[in-house]
Amino acid sequence: MPQDSFKQHLLSEFNIQFHNEELLREALTQRNYLNEHPDEPGRDYQRLEFLGDSVMQVSVAEYLFKRYPSWHEGQLTEMRIAMVQTRSFAHFSRVAHLNEGIRLGKGEEMSGARDRDSLLEDIWEAFIGALYLDQGSEAVRTFLDQTLFAAIDTDFFDRFIDFKSRLQEKLQKNGAVDIAYRTESEKQMIGNEQLFEASVSVDNRELARGTGKSIKDAEKVAARAALKLLEEK
Amino acid sequence: MPQDSFKQHLLSEFNIQFHNEELLREALTQRNYLNEHPDEPGRDYQRLEFLGDSVMQVSVAEYLFKRYPSWHEGQLTEMRIAMVQTRSFAHFSRVAHLNEGIRLGKGEEMSGARDRDSLLEDIWEAFIGALYLDQGSEAVRTFLDQTLFAAIDTDFFDRFIDFKSRLQEKLQKNGAVDIAYRTESEKQMIGNEQLFEASVSVDNRELARGTGKSIKDAEKVAARAALKLLEEK
Repeated sequence: MPQDSFKQHLLSEFNIQFHNEELLREALTQRNYLNEHPDEPGRDYQRLEFLGDSVMQVSVAEYLFKRYPSWHEGQLTEMRIAMVQTRSFAHFSRVAHLNEGIRLGKGEEMSGARDRDSLLEDIWEAFIGALYLDQGSEAVRTFLDQTLFAAIDTDFFDRFIDFKSRLQEKLQKNGAVDIAYRTESEKQMIGNEQLFEASVSVDNRELARGTGKSIKDAEKVAARAALKLLEEK
Repeated sequence: MPQDSFKQHLLSEFNIQFHNEELLREALTQRNYLNEHPDEPGRDYQRLEFLGDSVMQVSVAEYLFKRYPSWHEGQLTEMRIAMVQTRSFAHFSRVAHLNEGIRLGKGEEMSGARDRDSLLEDIWEAFIGALYLDQGSEAVRTFLDQTLFAAIDTDFFDRFIDFKSRLQEKLQKNGAVDIAYRTESEKQMIGNEQLFEASVSVDNRELARGTGKSIKDAEKVAARAALKLLEEK
């Protein structure tokens, strides 16, 4: 039974066991499955997705608000938008093995919907909605600590953040300064890839360096490193 | 001290007293006030507004989810959008006397910002964010029960809901039916106003009637009454 192996994973990896298993089932039920099983009670995941969408919004907002006390609302908003990009939800649905538990219509199963990002994004929100109803906001937070929030400490969300603009904003807070990016080196890697090193300087004083597979990436990493230095001061 | 009369109103009307008064002060502080008082510690309301925005979203979503178990996600979404219309927030800011507690810059005070909807909308969200941090989601819910949620039982939000489409959707769920609206009467009122009565029928059987100051309003009220009858069955 695929449903059972999925539940064991939830328990062993995240210590989650639903009190009301019907909520979990509803979160993982796609509409055509119900059309094909008219005797099955219950609903599809869409109402729970409605609820889970705003549970995600507030969980992420509160997390960022408390974690980054020095960020202003524009920075908080930018990061929240990055984190509730539904495209990242598909990734975390797979991390939690939610895809294995979905009850799909036959046509959807045949066409590969079980691994389709759009479905997995919906399912993530529905699962969060179900967990919230079953166990409250604290349980949702604990689960997100192990998944979405853990990813903040990697560079998972960095691609969504404009670090160069943010650095500029910080440096020019008290008047104009001269910010310059320079490509310091360029290495040929295996497989036709290149690795660039970039530096960022303020008024001719180097602040930080970064490396990346493009000049743009290297500059972004340098800007991020410079921001980190400035925030630690 | 205007701050104090405002706090007494919060206590006597809503039984709200902040543990951390700085949160309340921050929620009611506009940026220019701080510019004019450089010795004052603290921030303006904008970070709390960021948090309160999503606290409003989830509070309303959860309320609707539980209150209307038969609504599908499209109907829930429509109503949530109606309820978190920020224009309604200005109204409730006044209901809670939040406007009296705002710390404004002088220029804003002179130009009448204290009674400006756009500011009162922001302040509502900031206040909700502060209340959430100070006393948790249950306290927010209790406060909303006395303000925003209470308004559901009046017709406050009805202007945002398309009852005619919703009735049509419900009636045609199992195939096409003939839905007809008819203006039954038209009365001349004092002050050049008119009062219309409209009926709605399905396959020539009258379902309900409604009255309003325009034919459109009367039909909407009739559709709402018909929906109520159908949901009670």
